[in-house]
Amino acid sequence: MRGQDTPALLETIAAAVQELVNTTQGEIAAVGFGIPSLIDRRSGTSVVAVNLPLTDIRFGALMAERLDLPVFVDNDGNVAALAEHRAGAARGVDHMVLIGLGTGIAGGLILNGELYRGWIGSGAELGHMVIDINGPPCQGNCPNHGCFEAMASGTALAREAQLFASVQPESALGHALRDGRELDGPLVTELAHDGDSAARDVIQLIGERLGVAIASYVNIFNPEMVVVGGGVMGAGEMLLEPARREVLKRALPPSRDNVSIVAAEFGHEAGMVGAAALALDGLAARQEQL
Amino acid sequence: MRGQDTPALLETIAAAVQELVNTTQGEIAAVGFGIPSLIDRRSGTSVVAVNLPLTDIRFGALMAERLDLPVFVDNDGNVAALAEHRAGAARGVDHMVLIGLGTGIAGGLILNGELYRGWIGSGAELGHMVIDINGPPCQGNCPNHGCFEAMASGTALAREAQLFASVQPESALGHALRDGRELDGPLVTELAHDGDSAARDVIQLIGERLGVAIASYVNIFNPEMVVVGGGVMGAGEMLLEPARREVLKRALPPSRDNVSIVAAEFGHEAGMVGAAALALDGLAARQEQL
Repeated sequence: MRGQDTPALLETIAAAVQELVNTTQGEIAAVGFGIPSLIDRRSGTSVVAVNLPLTDIRFGALMAERLDLPVFVDNDGNVAALAEHRAGAARGVDHMVLIGLGTGIAGGLILNGELYRGWIGSGAELGHMVIDINGPPCQGNCPNHGCFEAMASGTALAREAQLFASVQPESALGHALRDGRELDGPLVTELAHDGDSAARDVIQLIGERLGVAIASYVNIFNPEMVVVGGGVMGAGEMLLEPARREVLKRALPPSRDNVSIVAAEFGHEAGMVGAAALALDGLAARQEQL
Repeated sequence: MRGQDTPALLETIAAAVQELVNTTQGEIAAVGFGIPSLIDRRSGTSVVAVNLPLTDIRFGALMAERLDLPVFVDNDGNVAALAEHRAGAARGVDHMVLIGLGTGIAGGLILNGELYRGWIGSGAELGHMVIDINGPPCQGNCPNHGCFEAMASGTALAREAQLFASVQPESALGHALRDGRELDGPLVTELAHDGDSAARDVIQLIGERLGVAIASYVNIFNPEMVVVGGGVMGAGEMLLEPARREVLKRALPPSRDNVSIVAAEFGHEAGMVGAAALALDGLAARQEQL
């Protein structure tokens, strides 16, 4: 859906949902959306969207108009946290930090058993914590530099892979670069699985940076669990193992010794499952008010 | 009280409290303590104390025994946050981040109107977020390096002052170094107030680093207010002004444009006022349970 303008994007989304609604003969009670955007809940406005033309759009109201159904909207990181909390790795966990490693880094927080959104709904931007005060510029609409996202997202992994490949031209990663292949997460993960040391070094570096950020979140939140998802988690334990090592080296006791750092159970479906949970919660809250 | 062993320290504290209790003819209903320690609330144990011999001590139980009164204990950063929330700069504010800049950095969080403690009570260690992945070692019992505390506490300020003084020997700061004076927060602040450019540069550097950390906390929590206290805040606006500038450069909208960054109202009394609030809350919670 990239490259579309706002009205066309809204129509495309509404049409896709309407098609689903039509196949169910009126059994749909509400619609939930998880969108990659910072949200101001006071007005229901999507304030900043990094990768889609949704900036300053009242997305929920516009969708409710088109679909004639109750609509609930939240940030994609928040709905992924809801999915893991209700039906995934963090069932029954009241203090949970969710990190989604994709092109960017999504974040979600379950604190005292509830989704934490902040004062006006734009909190839990966990990818935008500075971990290197002198680090490279962040991406999209983020004006910062040295963010966790600039250092450990899929985009950062690809950038580091480029560097490692050119320094180690005889590695499989080096060969892939020479062959003109795109050094993205899936390829680097595949080469690392096959034992290429350059590819393994890249993933270890990203895993260590992930661990630096998790150590800070362990100190800040004292969570029972940190759940790591997103496409980059195709690398699985190759990423989590150096991250856990870094947490043990850096975080404070007793928080450090009382936290599980685990892979998310949901992949691409996290948004879908979490948006459904969001809609169910939203309907329940409305009925309580009646 | 530094330099004492644990039993002597406990006796000294109990005696001081008992003396106060005696002067009030039985009007004391409970005692609250704010201690510089990480706490495991499951057992009431002070797990790690950086500057006092309180590691692995069940401080609350031991004090209750000695004083024969209900005793409530929490981290010093947490009680400072309670003080500002109940009676200080953040009255009526439901989402607040407290940063206390002293020898170390204390942290406290009010989220959704309540003190946030984390899963077992050892959260809100806001000084131990890494802001420079390649930064200097942290202090006390913290095994990390490049923490906010290692970069922007009073200790870091004194370290940077040493450096700036030796590079600018003709500045007032340089003269103070040559005269063998201790280049601590109060002296650097005084020289900066008097217009010495080296001293001003030191405070600006610390203010900018403070701003880097606040920008991250703005992205993470979307707070309505960030309250900065502690001894280093003797420098006041000389510290907050560069911090605010850095937040505007680095944090994400809409959170960035909807936050006040202000000085704490309480100084040394923050711990006392907050510990009283803690004891009142604790008594109220017990009465609810009866």
